Amino acid sequence: MTLISRQIRLAARPEGFPVAEDFSIQEHPVRTPEDGEVLLRTLYLSLDPYMRGRMSESKSYAAHLELGDVMLGGTVSEVLESRSRDLVPGQIVVGAAGWQTYSVETASSLRVVDPEAAPIPTALGVLGMPGFTAYAGLLAIGRPQAGETLAVAAATGPVGATVGQIARLKGLRTIGIAGGPHKVEHLRELGFDAAIDHRAEDLEARIAQAAPDGIDVYFENVGGRVWEAVLPHLNLYARVPVCGLAATYNATGEPEGPDRSPALLRTVLNQSLTIRGFIQTEFRESLFGDFLRDMGAWVREGRIRYREDVTEGLENAPETFIGMLAGRNFGKTLIQVAATAEMP
Amino acid sequence: MTLISRQIRLAARPEGFPVAEDFSIQEHPVRTPEDGEVLLRTLYLSLDPYMRGRMSESKSYAAHLELGDVMLGGTVSEVLESRSRDLVPGQIVVGAAGWQTYSVETASSLRVVDPEAAPIPTALGVLGMPGFTAYAGLLAIGRPQAGETLAVAAATGPVGATVGQIARLKGLRTIGIAGGPHKVEHLRELGFDAAIDHRAEDLEARIAQAAPDGIDVYFENVGGRVWEAVLPHLNLYARVPVCGLAATYNATGEPEGPDRSPALLRTVLNQSLTIRGFIQTEFRESLFGDFLRDMGAWVREGRIRYREDVTEGLENAPETFIGMLAGRNFGKTLIQVAATAEMP
Repeated sequence: MTLISRQIRLAARPEGFPVAEDFSIQEHPVRTPEDGEVLLRTLYLSLDPYMRGRMSESKSYAAHLELGDVMLGGTVSEVLESRSRDLVPGQIVVGAAGWQTYSVETASSLRVVDPEAAPIPTALGVLGMPGFTAYAGLLAIGRPQAGETLAVAAATGPVGATVGQIARLKGLRTIGIAGGPHKVEHLRELGFDAAIDHRAEDLEARIAQAAPDGIDVYFENVGGRVWEAVLPHLNLYARVPVCGLAATYNATGEPEGPDRSPALLRTVLNQSLTIRGFIQTEFRESLFGDFLRDMGAWVREGRIRYREDVTEGLENAPETFIGMLAGRNFGKTLIQVAATAEMP
Repeated sequence: MTLISRQIRLAARPEGFPVAEDFSIQEHPVRTPEDGEVLLRTLYLSLDPYMRGRMSESKSYAAHLELGDVMLGGTVSEVLESRSRDLVPGQIVVGAAGWQTYSVETASSLRVVDPEAAPIPTALGVLGMPGFTAYAGLLAIGRPQAGETLAVAAATGPVGATVGQIARLKGLRTIGIAGGPHKVEHLRELGFDAAIDHRAEDLEARIAQAAPDGIDVYFENVGGRVWEAVLPHLNLYARVPVCGLAATYNATGEPEGPDRSPALLRTVLNQSLTIRGFIQTEFRESLFGDFLRDMGAWVREGRIRYREDVTEGLENAPETFIGMLAGRNFGKTLIQVAATAEMP
């Protein structure tokens, strides 16, 4: 029996916000695994803002997709067939199979997850790439000290919510910024000391009020208007880990002037700021083991909470992705591609 | 006998480039030193770009001057009278007596220099604040590795020339950027691997040619056009210590658009850059001892060379300062205020 994988591919490069026509859905026979490979059925697909960058041709921190490529993405899958001694059918693995229902992957590119230890979608969220992005960026670059103040935007998202909660565990005052009253309410439930709606006209005044002693760590995953409002409140020696700029991913050109980059550099100088871009892979070797240990315990103990926003059906991935870029998700955005009980 | 100190004071806040009328020269009786204080005669006054920032009211990394204040600045002075057990008349000390011929200072704010070990003006240059700025910023923030490429602007200035020469000692390929053919020629004499005139129209192409493997450390002391030309050539994980932005100190407003700050942050993210502002005082406690030992040896052995641009007479300080901001100095800018043999 030849398995057919349904795949979502990049059909056109988006101009600004992606639209449905930038994606195509196709069916493709799945090849037989060779030595060291496994056949996988995708259970959950992670949708993340960084994917927007890969859809464009512009220079990015990783190679961009070519037209016709299967959309990339983190996945939790079930092993159906194995030609590796390291994996057996029925095991659950996390990898990067992309936007498709079945795939053949190298066993060494996969990590086994224990479905008894935590619900399996967490391997794509709080216990996976977004959680690790938060952990590594905050601890290795943000160097949070008890008594300091942290601000983070997209604070109900999987990275932002985790950043805020780790910072709180470390004894910092935490300011969460998110869009809309429901998200702001959720920030309070998560234990943020202050919660701000980024749509507020007086955004900077609200940040000033929420940070009477200034901001020592600003975890940057958004850019744009929030960044402009935070910048004047950064303290001497503040640290700014930059892991994303979601507000600017869909920009079709540079914004109107004046040119604020000299003022930005002056603030860097005047405040002895550290601005440091990163992607989590940089810290995989040095910190991933610590992350699984710490975050696993924090999640089990209920000290770190997470929220998932799950949509069923691979065919809904493009619309869900577009909605996420517009801020319509609420928590870690996931596509449930198949249920574990389903047979191929 | 009451000593009279001639003083240069801030008479008006400059709009853009300072002019002679922004300074006033006055005479003021010098008070008698109290316990723990000394009476000093200024021998050399250091003129540095950071002083321009202190003349403006805008928020800077240090308190700005008030109108009527004596202009601040590093000095090498001779002790004339001492009411401290730590200092005796005749000793040479480095401190911050400012733009004046005589002053009373707290003994604990001064550091004794040995006139036998090195010419005393070096305590304001290669063995003083500019040399330490270069040493600390390059080593602690730039983290240079043998085989990497470093670029620095204002590269015949006391900071830039020292940065380039230390980087060369550490095994880096060094690119110096300066204004005009004489300075470019001097960069070659100092041993820079490549020397570029920042006035060149094809500045970015020249930087690309000089850095075939990209730039790993860009020591930022200028900003403006050089920064824009260097940015596209920064490598993954490049480090950018920011110790000055001389090109923008005299700006009277933000430059015309488009707004390049989002593009700057995107480059930070795409290249995992570290941009870190600093002033040398941050590293005084941790690195100044190492600096005096290392740099003292390098200067004695002729492995680090320096160039001084000395003007005689305190009354010439304003014009010399204005010329320095316009790039008309060539080496460490100093005012010789008095000769050691002169009697008060």
